[in-house]
Amino acid sequence: MAIGKSVKRVDAVAKVTGRARYTDDFYMPGTLVAKYLRSTIAHGRVKKIDTRKAEQLPGVEAVFTYEDVPETKFATAGHPYSLDPAHKDVEDRRLLTQHVRYWGDEIAIVVADNKLVLQEALKHIKIEYETYEPLVSPQASLAKNARQIHAGSNNVIGESGYKVGGRIEEAITNADIALQNRYRTQMCQHCHIENHIAYAYMDDLEHIVVVSSTQIPHIARRIVGEALGLPWGRIRIVKPYIGGGFGAKQDVILEPMVAFLTLKLDGRPIKIDLSREECMIGTRTRHPFDVKMRAAVNKDGVLVALEMDAVANTGAYASHGHSVAGAAGAKTRLLYPRAAMHYHARTVYTNTPAAGAMRAYGAPQVIFAVECMIEEAARKIGMDPVAFRMKNVARQGDADPLSGERFESCGLIECLQQGKDLIRWDEKRAARPKKQTGPLRRGLGVACFSYASGTYPACLEIAGARIILNQDASLHIQVGATEIGQGLDTIVAQMAAETVGVPFADVHVVSTQDTDVAPFDTGAYASRQAYVASNAVFRAARELKAKILEHAGRVTGILGGELDILNGAIVDRKDLSRKVISLKEVALDAYYDKQRGGQLTADVSHKTCTNAPTFGCTFVEIEVDIPLCKVDIKEIYNVHDSGVILHPVMAKGQVHGGVAMGIAAGLYEEMKIDAETGKIYNNNFLDYKIPTAVDVPDIGCEFVETYEPSSGYGNKALGEPPIISPPPAIRNAIYDATGIAINELPMTPHTLFKYFKEAGLF
Amino acid sequence: MAIGKSVKRVDAVAKVTGRARYTDDFYMPGTLVAKYLRSTIAHGRVKKIDTRKAEQLPGVEAVFTYEDVPETKFATAGHPYSLDPAHKDVEDRRLLTQHVRYWGDEIAIVVADNKLVLQEALKHIKIEYETYEPLVSPQASLAKNARQIHAGSNNVIGESGYKVGGRIEEAITNADIALQNRYRTQMCQHCHIENHIAYAYMDDLEHIVVVSSTQIPHIARRIVGEALGLPWGRIRIVKPYIGGGFGAKQDVILEPMVAFLTLKLDGRPIKIDLSREECMIGTRTRHPFDVKMRAAVNKDGVLVALEMDAVANTGAYASHGHSVAGAAGAKTRLLYPRAAMHYHARTVYTNTPAAGAMRAYGAPQVIFAVECMIEEAARKIGMDPVAFRMKNVARQGDADPLSGERFESCGLIECLQQGKDLIRWDEKRAARPKKQTGPLRRGLGVACFSYASGTYPACLEIAGARIILNQDASLHIQVGATEIGQGLDTIVAQMAAETVGVPFADVHVVSTQDTDVAPFDTGAYASRQAYVASNAVFRAARELKAKILEHAGRVTGILGGELDILNGAIVDRKDLSRKVISLKEVALDAYYDKQRGGQLTADVSHKTCTNAPTFGCTFVEIEVDIPLCKVDIKEIYNVHDSGVILHPVMAKGQVHGGVAMGIAAGLYEEMKIDAETGKIYNNNFLDYKIPTAVDVPDIGCEFVETYEPSSGYGNKALGEPPIISPPPAIRNAIYDATGIAINELPMTPHTLFKYFKEAGLF
Repeated sequence: MAIGKSVKRVDAVAKVTGRARYTDDFYMPGTLVAKYLRSTIAHGRVKKIDTRKAEQLPGVEAVFTYEDVPETKFATAGHPYSLDPAHKDVEDRRLLTQHVRYWGDEIAIVVADNKLVLQEALKHIKIEYETYEPLVSPQASLAKNARQIHAGSNNVIGESGYKVGGRIEEAITNADIALQNRYRTQMCQHCHIENHIAYAYMDDLEHIVVVSSTQIPHIARRIVGEALGLPWGRIRIVKPYIGGGFGAKQDVILEPMVAFLTLKLDGRPIKIDLSREECMIGTRTRHPFDVKMRAAVNKDGVLVALEMDAVANTGAYASHGHSVAGAAGAKTRLLYPRAAMHYHARTVYTNTPAAGAMRAYGAPQVIFAVECMIEEAARKIGMDPVAFRMKNVARQGDADPLSGERFESCGLIECLQQGKDLIRWDEKRAARPKKQTGPLRRGLGVACFSYASGTYPACLEIAGARIILNQDASLHIQVGATEIGQGLDTIVAQMAAETVGVPFADVHVVSTQDTDVAPFDTGAYASRQAYVASNAVFRAARELKAKILEHAGRVTGILGGELDILNGAIVDRKDLSRKVISLKEVALDAYYDKQRGGQLTADVSHKTCTNAPTFGCTFVEIEVDIPLCKVDIKEIYNVHDSGVILHPVMAKGQVHGGVAMGIAAGLYEEMKIDAETGKIYNNNFLDYKIPTAVDVPDIGCEFVETYEPSSGYGNKALGEPPIISPPPAIRNAIYDATGIAINELPMTPHTLFKYFKEAGLF
Repeated sequence: MAIGKSVKRVDAVAKVTGRARYTDDFYMPGTLVAKYLRSTIAHGRVKKIDTRKAEQLPGVEAVFTYEDVPETKFATAGHPYSLDPAHKDVEDRRLLTQHVRYWGDEIAIVVADNKLVLQEALKHIKIEYETYEPLVSPQASLAKNARQIHAGSNNVIGESGYKVGGRIEEAITNADIALQNRYRTQMCQHCHIENHIAYAYMDDLEHIVVVSSTQIPHIARRIVGEALGLPWGRIRIVKPYIGGGFGAKQDVILEPMVAFLTLKLDGRPIKIDLSREECMIGTRTRHPFDVKMRAAVNKDGVLVALEMDAVANTGAYASHGHSVAGAAGAKTRLLYPRAAMHYHARTVYTNTPAAGAMRAYGAPQVIFAVECMIEEAARKIGMDPVAFRMKNVARQGDADPLSGERFESCGLIECLQQGKDLIRWDEKRAARPKKQTGPLRRGLGVACFSYASGTYPACLEIAGARIILNQDASLHIQVGATEIGQGLDTIVAQMAAETVGVPFADVHVVSTQDTDVAPFDTGAYASRQAYVASNAVFRAARELKAKILEHAGRVTGILGGELDILNGAIVDRKDLSRKVISLKEVALDAYYDKQRGGQLTADVSHKTCTNAPTFGCTFVEIEVDIPLCKVDIKEIYNVHDSGVILHPVMAKGQVHGGVAMGIAAGLYEEMKIDAETGKIYNNNFLDYKIPTAVDVPDIGCEFVETYEPSSGYGNKALGEPPIISPPPAIRNAIYDATGIAINELPMTPHTLFKYFKEAGLF
């Protein structure tokens, strides 16, 4: 039995020995390299461009500008194609642009036979701009008479919301206490280790092969087809190992361009390998949110109503557009499903780098606001923040108030209880002076989250698995779901081993996705894969097992129904310890008997029409150094209900990474933009501070294992959730320590200084 | 409808533009190269080997000798694994050898970071041999007290035969006329354009990837596993486009060595790229045969009996061993199925390069003997050779006299009639003087052949096909059968298009075999693929079509059974001109509807338990220049019954190539070996004469289209057969022109001079 065991990752050796091959580790003789010419203004229009001198440099193969690329506008978001025209992503981007919309926008591209001349050639391109005032904030782009960043948009890309639980004004009026506040989150970067990279080539005149570091090979195939106006079947995307994505590679960024270039340049291999500086501005960021909140609460601790009005800044191009703000709001009603709740959001264009998907897809932003507000409410009525949450959060038997879908598994209250015990909440609070006064002050904080295990019913949820029985009784498994470092390959190998009945070590995973042959799946995002793929793998494994037993029946003369497979042997179903024949003998017979059998495979495509909510919370104890305005995390615990934990060590790894990223968002990271020019100050790792090993404390992690019946193996989402609740928990702990409510991220010393000064601490 | 049309080859553009990538077109950073140290004696033993100096050369990574490789002996023949231990290939080879068995035997291997140092390093390896007398001919190795080339073999690797049609001695005694003679064929080389090449690497510690120019990826996977003692599932073979094989790549020659080297050298990529000189001695040759024949014939033209006693020279190692001689004899009883027939063959080791599979697998050798003997018989009774054959060859309704399996299709008599008409046989013979005397003499010749469409029931016949419906209504098809230049990819695309009902241009073929994901098939040999794969492709296409119609039914509300697919549209089955919905709409719905459908695929593994005989003949008119001893082909026609012709232009191409190769075997090619030393004289294209465009005449080609019901599309074998009958037809034409019977191949001026002189022509 492999599920629930911390087996060795299937890619562990490849990765620790450096043998694993990433996109840049492949090389095709004659590969050309390409580099974008990026705008040096944030808003304007190219009046004139002269590329002649660049073209004449030895080594330069070609220069393309906005004049050379298709007129087609396309969307880059990594969403499944939708049959509903109203549900399509916004198509607002060409391969290159004359209209400059952010500092670094892509105007032209140089192709050369070496990297050195690329840099030189870019310098030789002469540009004249017509410049406009950069609209760097939503306030600016929403101002009356603001210039339209995309014609006809009024700088608003989308607007939506929901209302559940009755009339909110009435609820607020009738409640014991009403509160309101405003919370802001910052622009962040994904900071995946491997920058965006892709290359393309053609082996004939029809088929384009793109090798890319992408989370979404099958979606990339479609979008390349759409961007170039080619039938999708002529595009092939290959995804080797990838060095992280966190959502930045859930966008189709380089693939259409390298495909375009190889099409133009006789099918020659052409690579684009973004630098870190380019990657930080020219790919995607996390949407900054500005959330106005109102809440109503009764003195008995019942949360009556929550109202959220969010403005999300999507930057210069749509990318995931309004989906992030839309999806983010949906999570809060799963968290407090019994309160009246209104959510409204607008997503706004600005002249800043385009925002897209990033780990937890808007939930960290909205839930920061919510969990700050909840904290205010608990404090207002003088109730312990944990007790207040325990009273109001989702519990077994609740349902999504909008869809009415009942939660089949919900362990959030148990998570809160466990987190509270771990951090010794009551004990520490009891031991502490009522009011702290010294330079070092301790605080305890808590925050909760809920999340989903996919995107259904907003989007399609489909997964595929094909399993082959090899002659040596091992299995090969192909899935459409993509390994992007999170351990998906190991998980599907566990699932296949579990259900077919072979040792885990006998499952070989085809890790490289190749859209020509990989089963269809939309890719790595929305914490969906282990949940959605579980049903496809389960069905394929069960089907293969049935075929094996049927063939074992032919070989042994025993009815297949009387047999089972255990640890690679065919056994008596009624007495599992009685081995009937080895699986290898059955496999060899299936392959090599001259008449009966054949290669035994199972090939399953499965649509998942459920979406299990997943829950959890963060408990943190911090010490604030008042003079230094610095927060020191003493203890931090994330406790998750992610259903059955398939692989405890990898699950913990996922939580450790997510919490570290949450701490980073809470205390460190922010992309800084000059308000005048729209220029990004810190698109590099010297100036953009990510916490390192010395900044991140030991992270505690526990699981409340529930069983989610809609999943093949009882599991639910875990990939993104760990990032969500640490920032509000830290904020609430600072509040607890200092009595000062910080209402914006990141809570750097600069921010704290501003708040502490306002509060008269200095 | 795609079957029977000369559609554009799917790889046409890739190949004519040079975009198609072959094994050597791939490059992995850090690839090491390796080269064998080959013996400079033909028979002996290495007493001492000193590699130290070579190892010390800068750039040399390692030197391995017979002392470093596994003790395991393995077989290299590209046969399916057999469940019957008695039917296994002879395991007589280690990766490197101390016991030298032919001139060029592999004693050691040097690995270096560049090719130049390899050559240098080989010179620095010091060897002392103990030398034995080379046994260069079967006579020598069968002589009493001859040294055993492989201990315990008595230099005989196998012996077999069959007897059908009653007692042969009685038949010969009772017949009007008895004849006997002896015929010899030569050692040939395949002369594929792309030499043997392979490289291997590891991405982890368990899985070995071998990229190789092979006809048999799945078999190579097994044999690498066997040679290295590893589970087969840990081996992955990748086959890109390959530049010909003709059977030389139906042997697993380099794959186990590159796999061994990467295992030893930390998984680094290691390539072996044989030179033409190495390829000609160190891979495989065609077995020379020495066939003693007896025949009995009645004056009324009935062939009563044929007896064949063959000795095949397999050279130094087993490779395909006795299978070639065994399989070759089976074809003659399909050709003259009503005669009493005895076949006996022995296959003998000698100290010459190892013989293996080569186009038509022994049939050219045995059928040369048979069709010479048949010619003698016809002449002896004064009957027209065509008429004599028409009276005796297989016809519709005949059966294999050994198995009793009836021929479902047989158009040989029609082939003879058509060939006779094409060459104007009767007219030319009538117009010719009874006896020619000048220096230039004309002659007409004919010869027949039969062949099989696979290896069943001797071996397993299995094929696999997986077809995917893409979103744009195109298909991707994966097959286990391998494209090796013959056009297999195009054929399977035609089959899939035909049966699913989409335009041929909408079928994309996954040409690269990758044993991790490609359906199982044993590979390209035995002219099996189009026949055996036809059933797998047909079944997969039919299954996919049914799934498409079922889904179309869901979308349209019309029962799937009332729909059909025509030219990429869903139509009314009762009125095919009435389009109901486009296939693309159905495909998009199947992929993207949130609840119903899924990616539609079909994945079929099929065992073929039939084996359709295929027939044909060659007619040739030649002019012999007596003083120059030179043969000039004036006209040559091959007429084939290969069932339904799937692609007329490619079929003709296949025939043109085969006939050219037959002419080469008849008049030009032979590997020359020094009888004293066993050294090969002419292992290069300066000294080994293959006919070029100026040597090969226009080749006429026609087909008698029968319908073979055991095949998915009515087709039968065509790959190898065209090579079989040209040599005896040419020989018979020389006989006709000169009255002199040449009983050996090749019929070069040297050979003719010898015969002409003996006959007193000079």
